[in-house]
Amino acid sequence: MSIRFPLILINFKTYIESMGNRGLELARIAEEVSEETGVCIAVAPHTVDLFRVAPNVGIPVFAQHVDPDPPGAYTGAIAPESLKEAGVSGAIINHSERRMRLDLIEDAVKRCSSLGISTCVCANTPLAGRAVASFAPEMVAVEPPELIGSGIPVSKAKPEVVEGSVELVKRVNEGIRVLCGAGIASGEDVSAAVKLGTEGVLLASGIVKAKDRRGALLDLALALRDQGR
Amino acid sequence: MSIRFPLILINFKTYIESMGNRGLELARIAEEVSEETGVCIAVAPHTVDLFRVAPNVGIPVFAQHVDPDPPGAYTGAIAPESLKEAGVSGAIINHSERRMRLDLIEDAVKRCSSLGISTCVCANTPLAGRAVASFAPEMVAVEPPELIGSGIPVSKAKPEVVEGSVELVKRVNEGIRVLCGAGIASGEDVSAAVKLGTEGVLLASGIVKAKDRRGALLDLALALRDQGR
Amino acid sequence: MSIRFPLILINFKTYIESMGNRGLELARIAEEVSEETGVCIAVAPHTVDLFRVAPNVGIPVFAQHVDPDPPGAYTGAIAPESLKEAGVSGAIINHSERRMRLDLIEDAVKRCSSLGISTCVCANTPLAGRAVASFAPEMVAVEPPELIGSGIPVSKAKPEVVEGSVELVKRVNEGIRVLCGAGIASGEDVSAAVKLGTEGVLLASGIVKAKDRRGALLDLALALRDQGR
Amino acid sequence: MSIRFPLILINFKTYIESMGNRGLELARIAEEVSEETGVCIAVAPHTVDLFRVAPNVGIPVFAQHVDPDPPGAYTGAIAPESLKEAGVSGAIINHSERRMRLDLIEDAVKRCSSLGISTCVCANTPLAGRAVASFAPEMVAVEPPELIGSGIPVSKAKPEVVEGSVELVKRVNEGIRVLCGAGIASGEDVSAAVKLGTEGVLLASGIVKAKDRRGALLDLALALRDQGR
Repeated sequence: MSIRFPLILINFKTYIESMGNRGLELARIAEEVSEETGVCIAVAPHTVDLFRVAPNVGIPVFAQHVDPDPPGAYTGAIAPESLKEAGVSGAIINHSERRMRLDLIEDAVKRCSSLGISTCVCANTPLAGRAVASFAPEMVAVEPPELIGSGIPVSKAKPEVVEGSVELVKRVNEGIRVLCGAGIASGEDVSAAVKLGTEGVLLASGIVKAKDRRGALLDLALALRDQGR
Repeated sequence: MSIRFPLILINFKTYIESMGNRGLELARIAEEVSEETGVCIAVAPHTVDLFRVAPNVGIPVFAQHVDPDPPGAYTGAIAPESLKEAGVSGAIINHSERRMRLDLIEDAVKRCSSLGISTCVCANTPLAGRAVASFAPEMVAVEPPELIGSGIPVSKAKPEVVEGSVELVKRVNEGIRVLCGAGIASGEDVSAAVKLGTEGVLLASGIVKAKDRRGALLDLALALRDQGR
Repeated sequence: MSIRFPLILINFKTYIESMGNRGLELARIAEEVSEETGVCIAVAPHTVDLFRVAPNVGIPVFAQHVDPDPPGAYTGAIAPESLKEAGVSGAIINHSERRMRLDLIEDAVKRCSSLGISTCVCANTPLAGRAVASFAPEMVAVEPPELIGSGIPVSKAKPEVVEGSVELVKRVNEGIRVLCGAGIASGEDVSAAVKLGTEGVLLASGIVKAKDRRGALLDLALALRDQGR
Repeated sequence: MSIRFPLILINFKTYIESMGNRGLELARIAEEVSEETGVCIAVAPHTVDLFRVAPNVGIPVFAQHVDPDPPGAYTGAIAPESLKEAGVSGAIINHSERRMRLDLIEDAVKRCSSLGISTCVCANTPLAGRAVASFAPEMVAVEPPELIGSGIPVSKAKPEVVEGSVELVKRVNEGIRVLCGAGIASGEDVSAAVKLGTEGVLLASGIVKAKDRRGALLDLALALRDQGR
């Protein structure tokens, strides 16, 4: 499934509201909104639900985590090859709730890239964003952890973090797309993010826990679309 | 899916031979052999394949790993609730390739038990087997790591480890089933294991990488069945 | 330095008040109180201060953590042999702020024991206490994490946790001493702990951050001594 | 203790040959050779021996590992403040035998820098070297793990790794010094390293396990000195 920018990437985390068939439903809502608006929307379901979702929607599906180990005697690991076989298009790496060792981030990006799996590496600061840019992932997502789930959008509360990240990442590698996350919930937040140079957003509770998930997502997508005009 | 003893539990690890549809195929072979012989055979597919396998076979399916975190903001975690929703019956915990902190083992067993997910906690020594017995998992699987994948069956090379484990575990909790693993490949190895007091085996490469997987599994199952007579 | 029971074990953590020479001073206060009261008091200084403290006091000194790796190419590890050479008598293992993998707990206890280093393994629940008792450490310290640093003494708030731990640990191995910790600050808390069957206490902020550290420690020691009569 | 370049940094690891007083002796040999040759030599003793060594030698002393946690309730952590109080000048961070999470590397560098503790962050590849350069440590040490302890010097076996690292690191931050390590044992290896643009070497077994440690170190120091002319 090809990924286009600007991108909305919805992390389902392990919320009860996005588990099992409720996750598939949410993925289908994302698919509909994507079709309606023309904006690329990707979803990152529970790991156990990747095969429930990926073969059944026409939008990119991401893993929430991936391990760099090759196929083999690695009980419990999430091998990039497994993702590939399940029709997964991308992987979130080093999420603030799943921080990784530096060397494993490098290996995970390399192995995913070699298999054609898109990578979105998370970073908590502009300097960390620049650091992971060294490995040439397709995306770097900057998320100040203190704003995650806070309802305070990073694009408004810390514009300098977003802008600084874009600048530092692009200086290492012009081709990397910068997303931002943490506290993003409305179209307004998204517009602010795009104005700061990002090409998308990574969000979770803002959609997963919204009362009107379709409405909330449509609001984001329209803001992104109109921003692009 | 109800689990019966003696049990053969096949860990697919992340072998390429057990990935994706090859994993589903192997699970179906296990199902057939189970039906033919009446011996309970369970499979532990790649995490990403749990939903590919569990709804499609009539034998118990296990996760290779589970996290104790509750549903919520735990990106990348394998929540017991996710397993439940995917139709998974049990979980391997603390495998030698995925060792866990003691406190997390306790929490993982508790949370799985409260959801009706069966637990098989691995231990590398009889003393570690007794330690995890404290948390009352349904099964304790003793596997000396140096024999895993070695082709040397623990039931023959270290009978005292198997016997000692059975004795120590049962003294803590009579109701816990003891499995053994590491190097198990033939019916003869299984017979030896049962004679030492175990109620099943945990194995991986012996089946996953066998040339004739059906034949190898049938050999194990028949040995287990005849042992029980 | 020989350890006697009942025991007061003071964990200096990495508090600023117990760092460097302030840690040595606190260790000397402990030594004086121990001499005055005849009660055994041990201290666990900052790792970096072990050699500052151990050769300069006549009371047992503990490490706050130890790794099971043998001497060799293990950069940054705390080898039991290093402790031995520095005159350290014991080691805290698996503290709630430094949880360890089950297999490493077993290895760490074994390696320390073989070198004559006393071990105090922490556990957050009675079942975890029983689990680690399997490895025959000299002491098991039960500390419900939610009470650590709370000022609410476990011996009063959760007497059933303390009593249950003593019973379960002793059933595995009569010879293991059970300590309790979390929220212990006064002589009264210590008396309550001893009445529940423990042979000592593990505490930190209650002494390290006390305004009158000598007075606070004397209060504890006298309570322990009088309890024993 | 001020650090000058080119630098020889000797990692004592947890080798038995560099433990306790043997470590202090080795540090004194390093001090003598440093005085004789004018070349800056630093040592990284066992963590437990930092206070045994640092106050007793006139050369820079490094920790083998440091944690980013602030002073407080962090049992077992190695706080930068503890290092400072013990007279330690610098810290190795993210050694291949002690890999760290990316976010903790950033925090550890920041906290050390703010306290005037010099930092040497290890990296296994040129890209990882560039990544950690983002945090502006004083030094980046590139060490291909497969050559560590191999006796095959990185400066000869993989000159492109050394040269590539220097180039990438300097492009991020001109002021960072690049060291190389892995397999370095002779003056010739050191000369090769300096010719490739490094300003020093990080080594361990080549000195610690040398039969004639003084001689081996003198050989290295003279090569570095003569290289500088």
